[in-house]
This record gives sequence, structure tokens and C-alpha cells, in this order.
Amino acid sequence: MGGVTTPERERVPKQDRSRATRQRLLEAAVACLAEHGWAGSTVSVVAERAGVSRGAAQHHFPTREDLFTAAVEYVAEERSTALRALFPEGAGQDRRAVVTALVDLYTGPLFRAALHLWVAASNEDQLRPRVTELEARVGRETHRIAVDLLGADESRPGVRETVQGLLDMARGLGLANLLTDDTGRRDRVVAQWAALLDEALD
Amino acid sequence: MGGVTTPERERVPKQDRSRATRQRLLEAAVACLAEHGWAGSTVSVVAERAGVSRGAAQHHFPTREDLFTAAVEYVAEERSTALRALFPEGAGQDRRAVVTALVDLYTGPLFRAALHLWVAASNEDQLRPRVTELEARVGRETHRIAVDLLGADESRPGVRETVQGLLDMARGLGLANLLTDDTGRRDRVVAQWAALLDEALD
Repeated sequence: MGGVTTPERERVPKQDRSRATRQRLLEAAVACLAEHGWAGSTVSVVAERAGVSRGAAQHHFPTREDLFTAAVEYVAEERSTALRALFPEGAGQDRRAVVTALVDLYTGPLFRAALHLWVAASNEDQLRPRVTELEARVGRETHRIAVDLLGADESRPGVRETVQGLLDMARGLGLANLLTDDTGRRDRVVAQWAALLDEALD
Repeated sequence: MGGVTTPERERVPKQDRSRATRQRLLEAAVACLAEHGWAGSTVSVVAERAGVSRGAAQHHFPTREDLFTAAVEYVAEERSTALRALFPEGAGQDRRAVVTALVDLYTGPLFRAALHLWVAASNEDQLRPRVTELEARVGRETHRIAVDLLGADESRPGVRETVQGLLDMARGLGLANLLTDDTGRRDRVVAQWAALLDEALD
């Protein structure tokens, strides 16, 4: 420690520092949205939470809509990557484990943050098209992962809708977990529907 | 008309007028919540929309929380009654029609209003216990109706969770309909899952 004369900050290339700042802002934005909702989430609040100046935050994200849609997308991508990493062998997994992991996407801070953004978008004209487009993109990616991991053959009639319905259920289970810890009930529902799904997909 | 000398207002007993005022306030509150969200929904805004003085509104509902939780409960009860009335013969109905009617509970202004209240409650300590309790009560009643109309025998293992999962899916489908008209996709998902449910319940 004592022998280091160049501060850490100067040894990190500028581009990497910029990327690290951006990432800190995105993570702070999701946490802020999850905790305080849309009304309590501004660029200033997020900049302070991330330890970044308001000017630097606005350099990365010119508008509030830019910051929060980018944040939800960033964390959704992180979670998609983590979900695929959980099942490195792809299809042919224990379907109940896959259903549990899919349902888990809709609990926790990301889902809370996304839900706040979604609900705010339903009443705000500036936000609506951005969030609609974001949700469609994230939804398509989640559907693709679900099809892969469940080994679902979408060329068979009804299979596409079976997977879609499962993801709708996962979203509804996430909503049921918003105000109370619904883990016990959710586990029982997941066990039952994973069994029904297994029959439907084979 | 010309011969009527007593104004309509005076011929209606005071108690009925009070009930009518209350009902106008409840309906205005749900509409306001659905359109403007929690942040834009105050007792004053609702009173004006209902054509009632602020004082009269506060006589019926001393706090903002009282007004909006009562409003969501009132409309939920109306919808439950309407749902039972759709199937006066109870169980043994066409299950797809029942599933469609259940899913319909989670689209439209009531669901939007309830969702706003739900999401606001997740960040507001005054609101959370009220909404948690309300949702539990409304959820139990909806579950009871679903079991009756689907002719589900809950003494059989898994049947309770099957019905619960269906209602979770209905809630998730409601969420998917918030920003865009999801009717086409929803109809296909409902058709498929009604068929899976039919097998699971028989």
C-alpha cells in the first residue's frame, strides 16, 4: 500500500472508468426504483446514491426516461445471462428446477423496479412507448430462454401458448409476492404446475 | 314534469342520498386511480370528479387511504357479484368460458386501479397493511368463486394449487395488458390453459 504512488483511479483507463460509472448509475437506478417507486426516483437521487455528480449522470443519461429504462434493461440482461448460466447444458433439465428459476426472475428488486416503471408508464405519455418497447424485447428474450431450457417444441400446436401462459403465471406470482412473503404458497403452485407442464410438453 | 313541485332531491330519503353520494365517490375514486395513479389521486380530485364537496367526501372517508381501499373493495365486490351472475347454475359450466370470465376480472379499470394501489402500498407504510388485508380478502373470495364455477374438488391433492396457479396466471395476463392491447395473445393462452386445466381437474 505505502509503496503505491500512482492513485488507483489514474491507472484505470478512462474508458473503463466511464463504464464503471455507467454501471454504478444503472444499479443505483434499479435499487432506487424498487425502494421508492417512480415518483421518488429522479436522476439527482440516483446520482447521489451512486456517488456520481449530477452532471456526470446526465452525460451518460440525458433524461430520466433514458436512465430508468436503461437500468431495467441492464439488470434484465444480467438476470437472463445468470439464468442461462444456471443450466449450462440447455434443454433436458429437470423441468421443475427450470420453472422455479423462471419464476424467480419475477421476484426480488428487479421485478419490483420493472413493475414501478411499468405502472408509471401506463399513465405517462413520455414513458409509455419506451417501456412498451423494452418490455417486448425483454419478454421475447425470456420466452426464448424458457423454450430452450424447457426443451419445448414450438412446432407442436399449443406449445407456444403453454410456455407463454407459464410466464404469465410467473409474473402473477411475482405480483402476489409484492406486499407479503408468498414463498410457501408459490413453491406449492410451482410444484403443481411444473407437473402439469411436464405432461403438456411431452 | 311540469306538475312536479317537490324537487327530486327532497323526495329521496336522506339515508339513500348519503348512500348514493358514497357510491359516486367510490366509483370516481376507482376511475381516478386507474387514470392518474396513486400520486395523482387525492380526496379533493375525487370529490370534484364525483361532484361532491370536499367536506362531504371527508365525512364519508376521513383519510385518503380509507377512500381508495374502500373504492377498490367496492368495485371488486361488484365484479364478484357480476361474475357469479354470469353463471347462475354454478359448477358444471363450460370451463373455457369460466376461465375467460376469471381472466377478464384482471383487465379493465378495476385491475388498473388495484394495481396502482398495490404498487403504491409496496412503498408506503400507511397504505401497506390496509392493502395487504384487502388483497387477501378479495383474493380469498375470487378463489372461492373459481373453485365453485370450475367444479374443482379441493379435497384432491394438487387441485387447490391448480386453481391458485390459474388465478396467478390471470393476474399476470392482466399485467401484460396494461400498456398494450394483449387481447389476441391472451385468448390463445386462455384456450390452451383451459384445456390443460380441464384435464387436470377431471
